[in-house]
Amino acid sequence: MADCIFCRIVAGEIPADKVYETGTVVAFRDVNPQAPKHLLVVPKRHIATLNDLDEQTIALVGDMYLAAKQIAADEGFAESGYRTLVNCNEDGGQDVFHVHLHLMAGRRMGWPPG
Amino acid sequence: MADCIFCRIVAGEIPADKVYETGTVVAFRDVNPQAPKHLLVVPKRHIATLNDLDEQTIALVGDMYLAAKQIAADEGFAESGYRTLVNCNEDGGQDVFHVHLHLMAGRRMGWPPG
Repeated sequence: MADCIFCRIVAGEIPADKVYETGTVVAFRDVNPQAPKHLLVVPKRHIATLNDLDEQTIALVGDMYLAAKQIAADEGFAESGYRTLVNCNEDGGQDVFHVHLHLMAGRRMGWPPG
Repeated sequence: MADCIFCRIVAGEIPADKVYETGTVVAFRDVNPQAPKHLLVVPKRHIATLNDLDEQTIALVGDMYLAAKQIAADEGFAESGYRTLVNCNEDGGQDVFHVHLHLMAGRRMGWPPG
């Protein structure tokens, strides 16, 4: 999608601090980090929200989580811990309408989660 | 696992307010809700943390997210929005060591997410 910032990052049209990539997902650092480590994992395919996932595309969520697990190991915070979250629509706080997983670590995350 | 509270809920040994169930996952209301709607989606199979997922079990994450999507529709908050999160180990705030997805809705979730 030409007007989607994450599609443009996937395509390399907008620079991003990419840390990991597979055939189906890309991960890069959030430009407004909310924790010492704050990465975004996005599917290369444009899917607007969690509500748009179906039986044919749901495996992408698994791909995103396997990427998160690998990044946690690579960045050294797998054992200390991390929070993963995906927001959907306004009440969830979704800002970019291309599904993205927030991966946050490097401090003790609080509760409630926002 | 006999000493895992979520395994015991899955087995029906501990009561829970179940709202949804498939062959692989169960969803029930959190006993300490942090939002007007706060549900937990857990795989029936015991997996301690996100770090323990692998190529053989990762499809369970997709099952959890498809369940979350269906619950959001059933409970009427798919369009208004929701937040999904999974904590891993201490810094993430994981309290029960059986993977669980928090599904929260019914208010505008804040940022940062804890």
